[in-house]
Amino acid sequence: MATPKLLESPCSIARSLGVLGERWTFLVLREALTGSTRFAQFRDSLGLAPDVLTTRLSTLVDYGVMTREPYREPGSRPRDAYHLTPAGRELHLVLAALQQWGDHHLPYKDGPTIERRTRTDNRPVRVAFVDDQGTEIPENEVKTLRTAAYPTT
Amino acid sequence: MATPKLLESPCSIARSLGVLGERWTFLVLREALTGSTRFAQFRDSLGLAPDVLTTRLSTLVDYGVMTREPYREPGSRPRDAYHLTPAGRELHLVLAALQQWGDHHLPYKDGPTIERRTRTDNRPVRVAFVDDQGTEIPENEVKTLRTAAYPTT
Repeated sequence: MATPKLLESPCSIARSLGVLGERWTFLVLREALTGSTRFAQFRDSLGLAPDVLTTRLSTLVDYGVMTREPYREPGSRPRDAYHLTPAGRELHLVLAALQQWGDHHLPYKDGPTIERRTRTDNRPVRVAFVDDQGTEIPENEVKTLRTAAYPTT
Repeated sequence: MATPKLLESPCSIARSLGVLGERWTFLVLREALTGSTRFAQFRDSLGLAPDVLTTRLSTLVDYGVMTREPYREPGSRPRDAYHLTPAGRELHLVLAALQQWGDHHLPYKDGPTIERRTRTDNRPVRVAFVDDQGTEIPENEVKTLRTAAYPTT
């Protein structure tokens, strides 16, 4: 279930959290980005109660983050498969930013368990601020401005 | 209160969420990044119950995301001020990624209310994947690999 109050906020962070901010949702998305598509895969890898998982997946489908499509394996009853939409795929960036932060500030005893690299030449990849030329900008060079759409009351 | 089960996970996303994933925490951080430092500022801008806010702030202090320091205004009783640590400041990237996603996929009727620009020459700033040279890499050029630290069981 999404959070209606947050979804009406003029703040995009709040609206994103209205869809994504419930417990387990980011981990459902992590599994989807890793290739899980079936209810049983999500359930087993996260150890989630089926009713909670059903609710989380439904919210993601309702808000265009995932699609739900029936499939049928020979000899089995029809089931649903869940795939990320392009909007869902874009959440890779959010999850990678969370992962990067955890790697630095809540390190695992054996070091990072996942790393990102460029497909073409295997160089390390991070998440960062970039300018309109696609060049990294340090955080202390980034300013935040209110636009004309910012509520005045 | 942090989530102990998540904090023990080998997955950095899960550990980050163990500290940051509770309802309201990202919005408390948004307020802190916008300059709020006092309990009453967080409470009033978020409309949060004081006991919930106290718990969220304490978790952030316990895990090194914020500091709690007493201050005293003339004629008032001592109060606590909350400031982001450098680790907390790094969450700007996570919040900006959430905001960017909300701007694109859950747009506000009047358009984005906040924008980011470079301090020196006022050019637009986004969050993106970058390589080791600080050059933007498209998401479909990013691969994710398990390291030797990835649990085998």
